[in-house]
Amino acid sequence: MSPQLSELFEFLRFPSISTDRSHREDMHRCVGFLQKKLSSMGLDAKVHQTAGHPILVAKNPPRPDRPTVMIYGHYDVQPVDPLHEWKTPPFEPTLVGDKIYARGATDNKGQHFAHILGVEETLKEYGELPVNVIFLLEGEEEIGSVNLGSFLTQHRDYLRCDVCAVSDTGMIAPGIPTFTYGLRGIACLEFTVRGPALDLHSGVYGGAIRNPCSAVAQMVASLHDSEGRILISGFYDSVQPLERWEREMWASLPDGDAATLAETGVPALWGEDGYTALEQRWGRPTAEVNGIGGGYQGEGSKTVIAREAFAKLSFRLVPDQQPDEILRLAADHLRAICPTGCTVEVTLGHAGPAYVMDPHSSHGQAAQRALSRAFDGKEPRLIREGGSIPIIQSVKDILGVDSLLLGLALPDCQIHAPNENFTVTNFEAGIRLNRALLEELAK
Amino acid sequence: MSPQLSELFEFLRFPSISTDRSHREDMHRCVGFLQKKLSSMGLDAKVHQTAGHPILVAKNPPRPDRPTVMIYGHYDVQPVDPLHEWKTPPFEPTLVGDKIYARGATDNKGQHFAHILGVEETLKEYGELPVNVIFLLEGEEEIGSVNLGSFLTQHRDYLRCDVCAVSDTGMIAPGIPTFTYGLRGIACLEFTVRGPALDLHSGVYGGAIRNPCSAVAQMVASLHDSEGRILISGFYDSVQPLERWEREMWASLPDGDAATLAETGVPALWGEDGYTALEQRWGRPTAEVNGIGGGYQGEGSKTVIAREAFAKLSFRLVPDQQPDEILRLAADHLRAICPTGCTVEVTLGHAGPAYVMDPHSSHGQAAQRALSRAFDGKEPRLIREGGSIPIIQSVKDILGVDSLLLGLALPDCQIHAPNENFTVTNFEAGIRLNRALLEELAK
Repeated sequence: MSPQLSELFEFLRFPSISTDRSHREDMHRCVGFLQKKLSSMGLDAKVHQTAGHPILVAKNPPRPDRPTVMIYGHYDVQPVDPLHEWKTPPFEPTLVGDKIYARGATDNKGQHFAHILGVEETLKEYGELPVNVIFLLEGEEEIGSVNLGSFLTQHRDYLRCDVCAVSDTGMIAPGIPTFTYGLRGIACLEFTVRGPALDLHSGVYGGAIRNPCSAVAQMVASLHDSEGRILISGFYDSVQPLERWEREMWASLPDGDAATLAETGVPALWGEDGYTALEQRWGRPTAEVNGIGGGYQGEGSKTVIAREAFAKLSFRLVPDQQPDEILRLAADHLRAICPTGCTVEVTLGHAGPAYVMDPHSSHGQAAQRALSRAFDGKEPRLIREGGSIPIIQSVKDILGVDSLLLGLALPDCQIHAPNENFTVTNFEAGIRLNRALLEELAK
Repeated sequence: MSPQLSELFEFLRFPSISTDRSHREDMHRCVGFLQKKLSSMGLDAKVHQTAGHPILVAKNPPRPDRPTVMIYGHYDVQPVDPLHEWKTPPFEPTLVGDKIYARGATDNKGQHFAHILGVEETLKEYGELPVNVIFLLEGEEEIGSVNLGSFLTQHRDYLRCDVCAVSDTGMIAPGIPTFTYGLRGIACLEFTVRGPALDLHSGVYGGAIRNPCSAVAQMVASLHDSEGRILISGFYDSVQPLERWEREMWASLPDGDAATLAETGVPALWGEDGYTALEQRWGRPTAEVNGIGGGYQGEGSKTVIAREAFAKLSFRLVPDQQPDEILRLAADHLRAICPTGCTVEVTLGHAGPAYVMDPHSSHGQAAQRALSRAFDGKEPRLIREGGSIPIIQSVKDILGVDSLLLGLALPDCQIHAPNENFTVTNFEAGIRLNRALLEELAK
C-alpha cells in the first residue's frame, strides 16, 4: 500500500460522526490529525472552535501577486446505521479490488484528502505553490453547516479569495471528468388544512362536511397538470430556459432516462412534458410533496374525520427564480384553492436560490482543463445537479466568489448508506486534479 | 331519591370497563348484579360465559301464543380517561338538577335498566307480561361485540323472537320521541401507492419521477367532483332515492343544517349538491378519507420523495348498495386512475350493508305508539342515523328480525367522553316506554 493510501486510511479510521455527541472527542482527534498533516507540509494550520465542531483553516504563505484559491472540504461523516448491512467495519477501511470501503471514503474525506496530498506533492516538487491556497475544512456539513455561515462572515478578510474549489459532487460515470456548474435552489413550506373543531365520527357526520384529508389531497393534486407542469400562477415567469448547448451536452451523456429509471426503480419515468429526465432533474423547477398526513395512521381502520391534515412541500428552483417570490406565489395559490368548509394555514420554511456559474468563464475553463489533465485528457462533461449545496451559496453570498465543483464521487459510491466506497483510481485522479487545478488557476 | 334511581346508581357504580383487563372482576360483579335483579323479578336469568365477557339472558315464562320481544342492552362501558376532565367521579353517580353524571349513565346502563324496571313494574301490577321477553345483555359492545355473533348463532333457537328492541341511539332533542328506522352501512379499504424502490432525495430526482404522495393525493381528489358527488363509476347505481315523506320529515326537524354546523364547528357545510345536511348524513352514501400518510411526518422539512404513500377510505352505504360491490367498484376505480410511474395495492377491509326497516310496518307503528305514550303523547320523529350498529345487522342476519331503535340519548349526554350524563326525565320516560312498548307489541 502506498504511503498516501496509508495516510488516507488513518484519516478514515476516525469515527467523526458530527450528529452524534458521543463522538465529540473523535471530532477533535480527527481535526487534530488534519492540523498535524497540513502543518507538516509547511502550511499555517489553525483549528478554530465554533459553537459546534471545529473548523480548520490552513494557508501557505500568501503572495499578493497571486490568485487565492480556497479548497473546501468536510471531515465529518454520516452515521453508519444500519451497521449490520456493512460488509466491512465502517471505520476500518478495507481495500477490495480498486475500492476503499469506509464511512467517509467518498463523502468527503477521500475527496478533500486528495487535494491535501496534491498540494503536498507540489510543495515537495517545487517548494512552493503557484497560487495562494486556503484550506477550509469544516466538521458540520452533515448537520447543515450550522456554524459555517457566521464563521465566513466573521473571517471574511482572513478568507478572502478569488475562487473556491470543492470536490463533493458526482461524476456521471467512471473515468469521465465531470464539471458541475449549477445547482437547483430550494423553497420549503408546510400547510395545514383545518375543518371541524374536533375529530368527528365519519358515520355520524360524513357527507355534510368537507374532510380535511380530502381537502389536502385536492390542494396537492392542484399543483400539477396531467403533463407535469406546475399550475401555480407565475411559477415559471422568471425561469431561464435551458440553453441549446446545455441540452445538447446533457443529451450526449450516458446517464440519461434509462439510468434514472434504473437508479430509482420506478415502473416508469414521469415529468414535465418536453424534457428529458436529466433536464427535469437539473434544469427545471419542481413542486414535490415531501410529506403528507392526516387522520388515522395505525393498522386497520378507524372511522374518523380528522380535524386537520397537512402537507410539506419543497420547490426546487432554477435560475432566475427568487425563493421568496416562489413561496409567496405558492402560499397565494394554496390560500386561493383552499376549498369551502376548510381553512388553510401556510408556514414558510427555509429557502435559497439556485446556483449557477458560467462554465465558459476563465475559472470555469481552468477547472475543465485541470479535470481533463487528471482524467487522461478526456473532455469534461458539463452538468448541473438537482440538489442544493448550501455552503456553495454561502461562499457566493459572503465571500462573493464562485465555486468550482470538481466531483470525484461515482454513481455506486454509496454515500450516506452502508458500504460507502471510493476508488483508488479516483483518489489518485484527485491528487492529479489538485496539482493541475492550481497550475491552471495560476495562468 | 326513588328506590328505582337508587338501584340505577348501584348499577352505575360498577366500573365495568370491558377493554381493560384489570376490570375483569368488576364485569363479573356487574353481570351478577343484573342476574340477581332479573331473578328477583321472577325471570329465568342465566349468565353465559364467552371467550370474553359474560352475556346475560333472562326470560319470563314463554307462552307460545304471544309474540316474543328481545330487549338488547350492554352493561360494559367506555374507559374514563381523561379522568381529570370529569367534574364528578365517573363511578360515583351524582345527581345535579335533572342530570345523573356517571360513566355508562346513558351508554348504556341507564337506557336498558329503564327497560328492566319497566318490566318489573308491569310484573308487579299484572303478575305477568303481555309478551314473551328475552333480555339479552352483553358486556362487549364497547369492544366490538366480538363474541355476540357466535353466541347468537349457537343459541338461535333459545333466542328466537319476533322483534328486537334497543335503546342505544339518540333523540333529536329533549322531549321529542325519536324512532330510528335506518342506519348506514360501511365498506372500508386501504390503498398503498408505490413508486421508487427506495426513498429518494427530492433534489436529485425530483421532476423526473411521479411522487407517490402526489399520486395518492390525486387519487383521493378523484373521488369527488366539485359538487360533492362521488365519481366512482356505478357507485350510485343501486342507491334507493329518499322518499318524499322522509325528506319532509327530516326537513321539519329542529336539528338541521345549523345544528350540524354548530356541532362540528366547521367554517361552512359542504356536501352533495341538492341535499340538506341531515339527508347527506342519514340518507346518502359517502366516500371519506379516514387517514392519509406518506413521507416525512416530523417537525420541519426533509427533502425526500417517499417510496410509498397510503390512504384509508371508508364508504357509508345506504339501501340497496351492496358492500362487496361497492368495494369492487372502488378498487377498480383506484386501479384505473393510478397514475403512470406508480403502482397501487388495494386492501379491502370490513364491510356491512345499510340497515333499514319499514317504520310503517306493524312493529314500527307499535314502537311509535309506545314512544308517543312515553313522551306526553307527542308524535315521534322518524329518523335514520349515519353510523353503523353492527349488532343490529347481526340480529337481522342471524335471528332474522328487525330492531326497533328507541333511543333515549340526548345530544349533550357526552357518551364516550368525560361527564357522561343521563336525565332522570329520560330514565323515567324509558320505564314508561318499556311498559307501553310491551303492551303495543302485544296488540
